[in-house]
Amino acid sequence: MQIREFTESDWPPVWAIVRDVVRAGETFTYDPRMTAEQAYDTWIESPPGLTVVAVEDNRLLGTAKMGPNRAGPGGHVSTASFMVAADARGRGVGTALFRYALDWARRHGYAGMQFNAVAESNERAVALYRRHGFDVVGTVPGAFAHPVLGRVGLHIMYHEFADRPSSEGPATLPA
Amino acid sequence: MQIREFTESDWPPVWAIVRDVVRAGETFTYDPRMTAEQAYDTWIESPPGLTVVAVEDNRLLGTAKMGPNRAGPGGHVSTASFMVAADARGRGVGTALFRYALDWARRHGYAGMQFNAVAESNERAVALYRRHGFDVVGTVPGAFAHPVLGRVGLHIMYHEFADRPSSEGPATLPA
Repeated sequence: MQIREFTESDWPPVWAIVRDVVRAGETFTYDPRMTAEQAYDTWIESPPGLTVVAVEDNRLLGTAKMGPNRAGPGGHVSTASFMVAADARGRGVGTALFRYALDWARRHGYAGMQFNAVAESNERAVALYRRHGFDVVGTVPGAFAHPVLGRVGLHIMYHEFADRPSSEGPATLPA
Repeated sequence: MQIREFTESDWPPVWAIVRDVVRAGETFTYDPRMTAEQAYDTWIESPPGLTVVAVEDNRLLGTAKMGPNRAGPGGHVSTASFMVAADARGRGVGTALFRYALDWARRHGYAGMQFNAVAESNERAVALYRRHGFDVVGTVPGAFAHPVLGRVGLHIMYHEFADRPSSEGPATLPA
């Protein structure tokens, strides 16, 4: 599996993934009726942000976007989002995209990475983020209307990067 | 002082307020170099959101925007933002706009109101929100680069509305 920058010809399979994830309504606070054009504007980042895809044998398995979490005085903290095709889950695609984004943010000098709205029912994501140094800064009670579970909390999660890059993975490479 | 819906002829004085607040860089995570067009797109809400202005003797003292904090499964929680002209501060304009937004969100059936990024150095705002039932859900350390104080925390604040409207103010009026 290779992770590389999104190019325009990736859009049809990326849109298929985004559409399915958003319509399921289980993880993202996006409008489930969003159009392809709205999805493109939301998911495809311009510099200083970046959108990438995970590809294997010419098949697109997942996608991630990353960049500053806020503008102006908030621009030194990064954020990222990840989506994996339904039939490619459980194979580490999301983990690989997550690690890619974390390394990207470290290399680009961000002070940390923040996730603004992680549904607490998304236990695998929460556990993955915790394993990589993220803490739950707080939880907004009932802020996510899950289609099956009803209203569950939305975690704000944050990982402050150490001044020295961590000892694992590409983050130790010079920027 | 009257609070009413924004109309297009309000834009020049609203832009003057937004520009000054954003350039000061002390409270909002907006790009201090944002153009008038970007400011318009950011500040002027379309339904289901709303932008209002506080006016006295044909002078525009402040402005607020309000609406859903997130889309889709996050759309039942509201958010709002407030800006007051530099020479109109200390007169309760911000408080009046804040109470207006809170009442608006209650009347429109939102489950609560969330503020995503309140600089902890903005002590008057934090105290105002606390007095009206908001709690600090969590604080992202150092996430706001204040021009004088350096990096300070960004509070996430939340106020869950009770099922019954509160007993004070217009929130008790039928929607």
